[in-house]
Amino acid sequence: MTSTPAGPSAGLPSRRTLLSGVTAGAAALAVTTGPATAHAATDTAANAAPAATGSDWETCLSVARAILVRDAQDQSLVPRYREILLSKGLPRGRKSPRKVLVIGAGPAGLTAAHLLRSAGHTVTVIEANGNRVGGRIKTFRPGGHERAKAPFADPKQYAEAGAMRIPDSHPLVTGLIDGLGLKRRPFHLVDVDAQGHPVNRTWLHVNGIRVRKADYAKNPRKVNRSFGVPAAFENKPAAQIVREAFAPVREEFEGKEGTELVEGWARVIQRYGHWSMFRFLTEAAKLDVRTVDLVGTVENLTSRLPLAFVHSFIGASLISPDTAFFELPGGTGVLADAMYERVKDLVRLDRRVTRISHGEDGVEVETVSEGRDGKPLVRQTFRGDRAIITVPFSGLRHIPVTPALSYGKRRAITEIHYDAATKVLLEFSHRWWEFEEKDWKRELERIRPGLYDAYRLGRAPADGTLLGAHPSVPSGHLPDGQRVHYAAHRAVARSQPEAARVIGGGSVTDNANRFMYQPSHPVAGCAGGVLLASYSWSDDALKWDSLDDDERYPLTLAGVQDVYGQRVEVFYTGVGATQSWMRDPYAYGEASVLLPGQHTELLADVRAVEGPLHFAGDHTSVKPAWIEGALESAVRSALEVHSS
Amino acid sequence: MTSTPAGPSAGLPSRRTLLSGVTAGAAALAVTTGPATAHAATDTAANAAPAATGSDWETCLSVARAILVRDAQDQSLVPRYREILLSKGLPRGRKSPRKVLVIGAGPAGLTAAHLLRSAGHTVTVIEANGNRVGGRIKTFRPGGHERAKAPFADPKQYAEAGAMRIPDSHPLVTGLIDGLGLKRRPFHLVDVDAQGHPVNRTWLHVNGIRVRKADYAKNPRKVNRSFGVPAAFENKPAAQIVREAFAPVREEFEGKEGTELVEGWARVIQRYGHWSMFRFLTEAAKLDVRTVDLVGTVENLTSRLPLAFVHSFIGASLISPDTAFFELPGGTGVLADAMYERVKDLVRLDRRVTRISHGEDGVEVETVSEGRDGKPLVRQTFRGDRAIITVPFSGLRHIPVTPALSYGKRRAITEIHYDAATKVLLEFSHRWWEFEEKDWKRELERIRPGLYDAYRLGRAPADGTLLGAHPSVPSGHLPDGQRVHYAAHRAVARSQPEAARVIGGGSVTDNANRFMYQPSHPVAGCAGGVLLASYSWSDDALKWDSLDDDERYPLTLAGVQDVYGQRVEVFYTGVGATQSWMRDPYAYGEASVLLPGQHTELLADVRAVEGPLHFAGDHTSVKPAWIEGALESAVRSALEVHSS
Repeated sequence: MTSTPAGPSAGLPSRRTLLSGVTAGAAALAVTTGPATAHAATDTAANAAPAATGSDWETCLSVARAILVRDAQDQSLVPRYREILLSKGLPRGRKSPRKVLVIGAGPAGLTAAHLLRSAGHTVTVIEANGNRVGGRIKTFRPGGHERAKAPFADPKQYAEAGAMRIPDSHPLVTGLIDGLGLKRRPFHLVDVDAQGHPVNRTWLHVNGIRVRKADYAKNPRKVNRSFGVPAAFENKPAAQIVREAFAPVREEFEGKEGTELVEGWARVIQRYGHWSMFRFLTEAAKLDVRTVDLVGTVENLTSRLPLAFVHSFIGASLISPDTAFFELPGGTGVLADAMYERVKDLVRLDRRVTRISHGEDGVEVETVSEGRDGKPLVRQTFRGDRAIITVPFSGLRHIPVTPALSYGKRRAITEIHYDAATKVLLEFSHRWWEFEEKDWKRELERIRPGLYDAYRLGRAPADGTLLGAHPSVPSGHLPDGQRVHYAAHRAVARSQPEAARVIGGGSVTDNANRFMYQPSHPVAGCAGGVLLASYSWSDDALKWDSLDDDERYPLTLAGVQDVYGQRVEVFYTGVGATQSWMRDPYAYGEASVLLPGQHTELLADVRAVEGPLHFAGDHTSVKPAWIEGALESAVRSALEVHSS
Repeated sequence: MTSTPAGPSAGLPSRRTLLSGVTAGAAALAVTTGPATAHAATDTAANAAPAATGSDWETCLSVARAILVRDAQDQSLVPRYREILLSKGLPRGRKSPRKVLVIGAGPAGLTAAHLLRSAGHTVTVIEANGNRVGGRIKTFRPGGHERAKAPFADPKQYAEAGAMRIPDSHPLVTGLIDGLGLKRRPFHLVDVDAQGHPVNRTWLHVNGIRVRKADYAKNPRKVNRSFGVPAAFENKPAAQIVREAFAPVREEFEGKEGTELVEGWARVIQRYGHWSMFRFLTEAAKLDVRTVDLVGTVENLTSRLPLAFVHSFIGASLISPDTAFFELPGGTGVLADAMYERVKDLVRLDRRVTRISHGEDGVEVETVSEGRDGKPLVRQTFRGDRAIITVPFSGLRHIPVTPALSYGKRRAITEIHYDAATKVLLEFSHRWWEFEEKDWKRELERIRPGLYDAYRLGRAPADGTLLGAHPSVPSGHLPDGQRVHYAAHRAVARSQPEAARVIGGGSVTDNANRFMYQPSHPVAGCAGGVLLASYSWSDDALKWDSLDDDERYPLTLAGVQDVYGQRVEVFYTGVGATQSWMRDPYAYGEASVLLPGQHTELLADVRAVEGPLHFAGDHTSVKPAWIEGALESAVRSALEVHSS
């Protein structure tokens, strides 16, 4: 693409050499396992940016080490982190105990607090929410530490608002779950049959064509042609097109170890760190825009095309049909409960941070209560020797810090991109996605003889009179407004596909719902289930956020019917739940999904220590949105504080 | 950068040649002034994408013509559009009158409706809002067609939630304002003195440095060094750096006319149409990231760095210190009133479209009422021969259309990027930004002797007790919650800069407020004024949206104090107003700010006619967010319908 001679990278040429002076913070990315010495200057008079120094290649190496969780000698930090987290705790025989303020009671804050208290420090955890901990671990459920009232018509039902799947490639979180004595069981990213075998029978529904995913993988021609892809791609499944597009990039590091592995990743960062996924697919992989539409729609790349190639590239290598995932019975909230239980006495709920002051003699954190439900506002000030700030930078943007943070930290707080993600969940009185046709026939005939055939022939009334019509649907949960909106927005498709007959897994559609996931396991004692009826990101997510609930749930249901057929309406209980992470008052977004260039420009500054202030949370790792990244940061920041 | 041989572009090389098959819709962008013949296929069975044909250069020419509002012969359409809009109306002697449904009562819909009714067609305008028309023209005001209750403590005050400035380079909207007999007066993008001369005395406040804009323009060194820019840029104002970066691009078309002008723009599109602003600044202009930070912060490019270069490039050439802007006394809402007055009898308020069906015999549009304030939901169906759809595509995404729209239109509706923009307005009982020091002294001493000096020396209480303390502030408007949040988030800076002493104009800050605008003119009979205390876009805007009003207004005030000093607190009335366009239930965003590549890939499909369905609104022009673009589209779509 360009013939600019690159620096130390013999293989791929680089355009990073055009970007001079990007790397002031390279050193800060190198994680030390000894005492932290990288206290940034916090001189109040000089808020100026430090002079741009350091070599470009060094920054790329540092980012590569952060991705791989390696130290400055390219050795994996994970075994040591695992040992600290799961068995030995922080090293003994260090300096005198500190008074530590941990801001935020998500997985990073709760874990750092536990490690530091166990090592003899005095810890206080300050949490903005008045009724829950866990951050973006959030289960819509009755009970739990939140003691919420039952969110669904069936009081036993629950569903995930946030983290819902734990990859087996994440050793810290899987180890912690086991270490805490919690059960885990498979999360079926690919749907399974009654015997638990992956069958990939869920639907791909695009351009008006509905095909089972297994059939698409065997014969993608009809779907691919509907996007107008060139002949060369007509017979290639989208996943394979993406895999082949990424293959030359993977070659840089696959099969390598140690320093060679780090350097391989550094070459990827050097070459593509400032590229968007759109640019990669069109210019490096040389895909035409129709093929980009295809893979974007089917493989969930479209909404993040303008964001960093590196982010989705890492994600695509993690979430593949080959990755095994786990979930927790009772919901991921059970993990938050267990983390909370260990430090419950340290946590001050209902204390939103409004101001942070710091200096040689420590940290002062001012807070205000939420004041929800008519409670009067309360202000409280906390003092400590050190603070670990786990607040997402999108939220930290509104918290004044005096004296001002370093130039690099301020830019990172201002500019780091947080992406939107919205989940819309719908409750059904039967898990109809597990039905065979004979189940459908039996249940529909219970409502009205002949109804099974009426749906099959597209002759059932489309006016909403059959909404929640099955006798298993408890009465009193369907608002009148939903019924009117449902009739007004009723499903377009009257054709009835055959029964889905799947457990777990999910369907893909080009309608506004985008991605749907069936629960992998029934809730004990329940015939019904809660469907993740729409899971979308970025622009796709923001479009769901302006609607009232009475509009959003019928619209979401119509999108489900588009894929599974009209007849699912009879089991809808009238109860939905929505989680817009962009609208969450303390999350301000799903996660830090970086823009092109931000990995090299901001990452070192994101986690750099500033005097007595330390920074943790998934956004300080290169695993944003994953609990694993939060735990990595918890151990790193606890080590920093412990050895400072 | 690359040596790939380009097609017909002799000057700049192009990477567009790598993107094969992008241009299926090129023909549709060519605006015809005769009968529309470009009815897209709406075959229900074949939803497939048409084969990718056409030449890349043709698409670039088409986009260039859309930017310049030219016909296929490169002649300006503006004189004809102006004539139709302002004097002659649509051509006489055409086919039989049609029954036309116009969806959306923003400037595009109201204007198209007026033109078509005047030409003898039967028109109905369907508007989702129950209480107002005007779309993203929206003035917070008492009275007007909305008959809203007074939004501010002073019942005479008003302020803009949406469109606030009309460039003199927009002939359709300025002509329409004059033609409707409405007054207009200067909008001061640059602040003026009491004699009306531009003085540029507002503040630039970044990296803890506060400097008047005029002083920065003369001596940018201190500010520029605070960003750590290379020596070559230390003495160049940010505006000049941007101007010089854009200069080689401007050379492609500057001073050219007719076909040469079109071809010049087409070369720009061919070269940079698929580039982000980030890529342009780093790779074409070869700016280091520190300089990108500088120009991004000062010249308002940062939040849109990942979006299309072309968008901000066009904007930067429009909004410069040299452009004259106008506003309407009484607010831009006065223009909406006048547009509404002409077609009031045609408009059906409180009818949100939920479904569009179309075929050879016309269009059927189903609607549902808002159901706000406890009113029961009402459904109503409208029928016509043709429809003009002006709904933003972010909203159209949720409206089922049967039979399905063409592949290109569906992709455009799904993918076209809408950007966030949020305005936070604060009311003050005096226009303190117009004060000289002697005014401050007089007014502060009225509150408490010695207070003027206390503020100057940073010794006034910082606990919020002086919030709204001036006797001119009417009582009863400041909620207790705001007072607590104000104390908790109180301004960081205690240093008191000298009086701003400006009329109009605006300040720039790197705090979360980002951009502030003072009103250009007093409201008659009012000592006070409403400050646009924060105007932000994209990620910057979304960060304001999760806050409650009681938090948002004190936080916004603290950001204003950061720039203007603590003492402004005494005039705050406790009343703010917020407009988040991303949260607006029918706008779903400020405007269609396109992503890299979308100008060439989607624009033709955005405006293409689909059977009896026509598409208008600012997003169908290359002037998103501007009334001018909406009016261009109104004339174009009215011509299409009239001659169909």
